[in-house]
Amino acid sequence: MTRDQLFEQIKTKGSYLCVGLDTDIRKVPKHLLGEEDPVFEFNKRIIDATKDYAVAYKPNTAFYEAMGSQGWESLRKTLEYIPKDIFTIADAKRGDIGNTSGLYARAFFDNMDFDSVTVAPYMGSDSVKPFLDFEGKWVILLALTSNQGSHDFQRCELKETEEELYERVMKTSMEWASPEQLMFVVGATRADALRKVRSVAPDNFLLVPGVGAQGGSLEEVSANGMNDKCGLLVNSSRGIIYASQGEDFAEVAREKAKELRDEMAVYLERYLG
Amino acid sequence: MTRDQLFEQIKTKGSYLCVGLDTDIRKVPKHLLGEEDPVFEFNKRIIDATKDYAVAYKPNTAFYEAMGSQGWESLRKTLEYIPKDIFTIADAKRGDIGNTSGLYARAFFDNMDFDSVTVAPYMGSDSVKPFLDFEGKWVILLALTSNQGSHDFQRCELKETEEELYERVMKTSMEWASPEQLMFVVGATRADALRKVRSVAPDNFLLVPGVGAQGGSLEEVSANGMNDKCGLLVNSSRGIIYASQGEDFAEVAREKAKELRDEMAVYLERYLG
Repeated sequence: MTRDQLFEQIKTKGSYLCVGLDTDIRKVPKHLLGEEDPVFEFNKRIIDATKDYAVAYKPNTAFYEAMGSQGWESLRKTLEYIPKDIFTIADAKRGDIGNTSGLYARAFFDNMDFDSVTVAPYMGSDSVKPFLDFEGKWVILLALTSNQGSHDFQRCELKETEEELYERVMKTSMEWASPEQLMFVVGATRADALRKVRSVAPDNFLLVPGVGAQGGSLEEVSANGMNDKCGLLVNSSRGIIYASQGEDFAEVAREKAKELRDEMAVYLERYLG
Repeated sequence: MTRDQLFEQIKTKGSYLCVGLDTDIRKVPKHLLGEEDPVFEFNKRIIDATKDYAVAYKPNTAFYEAMGSQGWESLRKTLEYIPKDIFTIADAKRGDIGNTSGLYARAFFDNMDFDSVTVAPYMGSDSVKPFLDFEGKWVILLALTSNQGSHDFQRCELKETEEELYERVMKTSMEWASPEQLMFVVGATRADALRKVRSVAPDNFLLVPGVGAQGGSLEEVSANGMNDKCGLLVNSSRGIIYASQGEDFAEVAREKAKELRDEMAVYLERYLG
């Protein structure tokens, strides 16, 4: 999917919502546990319920790996079920030496047909570039995450340039790929950081976790992060998929997704004009 | 497995060899391709052939993920086949926010019974600590890798302390865990870097890739990296498992492993006394 196609979808739906399919078998409503593949059945109903309001789906691979080979089957089936015009993100945070990253890329882009993979930058250029060899596919690189531990290393100030590590990660990786193939993960907890990120990368899409259960403000994220092609994918996982854990989970998920979409439509109107 | 148990095994075998089970279906000898699970059959024969000389096995998960749910089955069967007294490493380079890292830990320590997982440090403390909650299990944290891209970020000098990022990663993580649970991945390409690493972490085991196909010198690594409990696991993957791609692959793998063991026995004698 191209950046323009993603932007078109955002305008059509009035939404930049990404739904995180962090499906934990321990939280799947009881009435689904008799199904052959309860995780897939859960995802299927969540997708049916939210696809009018979501422009992206993001399964976190950890939830599927925790169930072994059966989990990988659930992931594969889930990906196939997502409508083809919706952007898909394998939230895998992979990264290894060149030939090995190449295999991860094959796993997510060839064997499965994800549009993008989240990648960890610590090992540098040759750990990221193999993902960029797949035309039309995206790398979403960890830059500034929203967790407590982000302060340990990402915020370290570098001697040479007095920039923080996450800025160096962004600037260096922007030499490897254009905004047509490179997005960044940016935690939503602080407005000043988001403004800084936007000044470093004016054109790149940002994947923003940390709205909803993780507590960021959608209004602040939108005011400080939006660019002229929207440039934002804002994720909500638990706040949508576990809003109810009863038989009405899909219906409630739809309501929660619609609430976020309605708020997003206002910001799109306000900041894109 | 405890550090002392690992050291005992090293002394008994006269070896600190880790065999990397980076098994690529495209490189499995033709005569095995008719088997129901050629990757497992290949690993089984490699393990039988090398277990007298190896103290650790390290499957890189990328090679198994590239084959989808079938690959995870091959990985699970391979792990079960490895003799219980040999140290096992899931070379997965995972790392995510706390609850998600917890799921990865469950995948590798609970569902499968690996002794250790390689972890990427970029997201900081809460991405690493969930792996440490498993008693008797190990984190092997990426510190200084041997690939070209390691210069992009790992070698960046920090303003406050004038240390490089990888040193900060080591020092900070050493506050989270003792040398009974924490090892570091350290590329073997430069002796001065290895001496520096050893001065920062005198007691921690180091997992050293980059000997063999990646080109480091075993003698130099041993001279600069060994401590009084050996403190080294030196990995060879392609140099052993693909030394021959004919019907004699297991036999040749055994010879290559024995060669490395024989050289290691000399260094153990020389540096441990």
